[in-house]
Amino acid sequence: MLTPRATAPSSSSSSSSPSIALPFSYSVTLRSPPSFSLRLPLVSRTPSTKTVKSSTLRTQASSSSSSPSPMIEKEIPEGEKPPTFLRDTDESASNSTNSVRARFEKMIREVQDAVCSAIETVDGGGKFKEDVWSRPGGGGGISRVLQDGAVWEKAGVNVSVVYGVMPPDAYRAAKPTENGDVKPGPVPFFAAGISSVLHPKNPFAPTLHFNYRYFETDAPKDAPGAPRQWWFGGGTDLTPAYIFEEDVKHFHLVQKAACDKFNSDFYPQFKKWCDDYFFVKHRGERRGLGGIFFDDLNAYDQEMLLSFVTECANSVIPAYIPIIERRKDMPFTDRHKAWQQLRRGRYVEFNLVYDRGTTFGLKTGGRIESILVSLPLTARWEYDHQPEEGSDEWKLLDACINPKEWI
Amino acid sequence: MLTPRATAPSSSSSSSSPSIALPFSYSVTLRSPPSFSLRLPLVSRTPSTKTVKSSTLRTQASSSSSSPSPMIEKEIPEGEKPPTFLRDTDESASNSTNSVRARFEKMIREVQDAVCSAIETVDGGGKFKEDVWSRPGGGGGISRVLQDGAVWEKAGVNVSVVYGVMPPDAYRAAKPTENGDVKPGPVPFFAAGISSVLHPKNPFAPTLHFNYRYFETDAPKDAPGAPRQWWFGGGTDLTPAYIFEEDVKHFHLVQKAACDKFNSDFYPQFKKWCDDYFFVKHRGERRGLGGIFFDDLNAYDQEMLLSFVTECANSVIPAYIPIIERRKDMPFTDRHKAWQQLRRGRYVEFNLVYDRGTTFGLKTGGRIESILVSLPLTARWEYDHQPEEGSDEWKLLDACINPKEWI
Repeated sequence: MLTPRATAPSSSSSSSSPSIALPFSYSVTLRSPPSFSLRLPLVSRTPSTKTVKSSTLRTQASSSSSSPSPMIEKEIPEGEKPPTFLRDTDESASNSTNSVRARFEKMIREVQDAVCSAIETVDGGGKFKEDVWSRPGGGGGISRVLQDGAVWEKAGVNVSVVYGVMPPDAYRAAKPTENGDVKPGPVPFFAAGISSVLHPKNPFAPTLHFNYRYFETDAPKDAPGAPRQWWFGGGTDLTPAYIFEEDVKHFHLVQKAACDKFNSDFYPQFKKWCDDYFFVKHRGERRGLGGIFFDDLNAYDQEMLLSFVTECANSVIPAYIPIIERRKDMPFTDRHKAWQQLRRGRYVEFNLVYDRGTTFGLKTGGRIESILVSLPLTARWEYDHQPEEGSDEWKLLDACINPKEWI
Repeated sequence: MLTPRATAPSSSSSSSSPSIALPFSYSVTLRSPPSFSLRLPLVSRTPSTKTVKSSTLRTQASSSSSSPSPMIEKEIPEGEKPPTFLRDTDESASNSTNSVRARFEKMIREVQDAVCSAIETVDGGGKFKEDVWSRPGGGGGISRVLQDGAVWEKAGVNVSVVYGVMPPDAYRAAKPTENGDVKPGPVPFFAAGISSVLHPKNPFAPTLHFNYRYFETDAPKDAPGAPRQWWFGGGTDLTPAYIFEEDVKHFHLVQKAACDKFNSDFYPQFKKWCDDYFFVKHRGERRGLGGIFFDDLNAYDQEMLLSFVTECANSVIPAYIPIIERRKDMPFTDRHKAWQQLRRGRYVEFNLVYDRGTTFGLKTGGRIESILVSLPLTARWEYDHQPEEGSDEWKLLDACINPKEWI
């Protein structure tokens, strides 16, 4: 059985898929290294005249008036990828290479390599641009973006490792029924994750989003008895502009297969959670056709859950690439493209208005280009667009409004 | 002298330009007629098979699960424009046709006619589609949208009249220094306004936004001594993708001329307020090159302010149309178009993330197509785009980051 928290997902209480699963209703005090966002592995280009001048512009702006007060310190660009972004103290700890932290980081970096390699192979033209960065107090990340390829118009695959400090309320929220009277101080936490959004060009080829993340808190120092916490979160979801039943069924079957290896309750629960989370409330519709989504998952054996999220992350390629192979070269018309662009507009609406990782990242001064790499290259808003009843566009909209069981 | 409220504008405390100037940090209980948004005169199309079927989709969705719980009741489409949207009780009041309410409504409807006529004339092809609607308890509006014209890709000009109820806190906020100890109950209010966003096709032709609104509260019933309040808000601002000094100077000169007829402090104060309000905080840049913006304006003679906002609204055509005439047929390249589209992306970011009218409207269940008519037809997000130093694109960005004095 899942805990009530895990079985009662809601779009208003669950954390964002593409960002670390902080309870975002709490304000988070971040110490150095102050980043917590997984979505926004802070990227820095190799300095050039252009970017130097550009930052001069920004510096002038921030010294002049109403610029933001970032909660997140500047990242440091790195020339080479370090073997790990874990702190030395983590590494030198006993069994460090076997720690869940270390194995999770290793897994997400392998998945990043595998997904980027698969994307480049299928794209046949575009190459990922890589940015590596670190923070003085530990942690860092690798951002990869492929833009204007042959198949994908924008594809971002990011991993990051974050050390931060969680306020007591957020910590208590992680396990509300235990030690409810203990009032610990701020709790250091560790988080690592992989986050990706892949937007193809062909309107018959679907957008994919996936994100898997792991959290750990230290035991709070001023509440000796309070337990250390850990949890996993994540999901994979598909956003087509047109429905091909075989594609959606295949996608969900792969998700279900990954889930069923561990618990037959997982797929139905996480499928519903996904439908609930990716809800564009003001439209009354989901942004796409779902998949799986979960958060705060800790009511199982930790090793089992590590294996489960690994299985989910490894399922991205078999779930997605065969669909792209079938659709990437299909002929299409301006009408198909315009509808894809309207659906991309909905994607923008979800990400800017509802996605907790994005909205939190914008408020706290995260690196904006990394936060918004999830946005499509292009999007469209037509006034009062109504697809004709029974049309292919109408069928997609229907499925976004009334989520279906695909398998 | 302006009051401290009027002279201390800030992007975090001022209300949205394109929406009625409710202090949005308060939750607003709306009674029938429950709409308060000026931006989104709620539009209904003539029922057709398509739209009927579409609403069937929506009804299914709302009966099934996690659909929004709108605070705003459904508007009623009207076949013809009524002579006024004021309540009968307002109309039958003594001097009703001379009331500020009545004269403000008359003014904004005349301005809507004049602006739409000027747009259609210059466009030479597109025609505005009009939707008229009302609410059972009084109030209503006229929405007009021109889409995919010869010159404008999307142009919306909306007027609306709203009767609502303001919570006591919001009412006290309107005049915090007076009767501070009185705790009145909910206060009925009246609001009317015109709101417009005009997005041209040619990347050298700027986007224009303007919005003028008038608020009145009734005297609170359970606090007999508490005063009745009124205030004006609004502004006009220009958002080009490329700077033509003569255009921006002309635009600001017209704004200044309108202001100077009433008070020589107005232009410098409202110019700065505009720069502060239309700030895309996470980018550290304004969405455009400003204009004027003000809110909660009541520290002057009411007749003078009515004349002032009338002058501002009447200045829209002479401020904007000559610029469009000069730019609408200029040859441009794909590069120019791509930059315009990137700037349109910033427009989307401001409206979805910061604009108080939009964010409040989305949360409270306002008619989404009307709320989001302000979004451009198309927009673009490139990863980490950096204009070349000294380029025309760089100059625009510079001016958005470091606001300039144009006259």
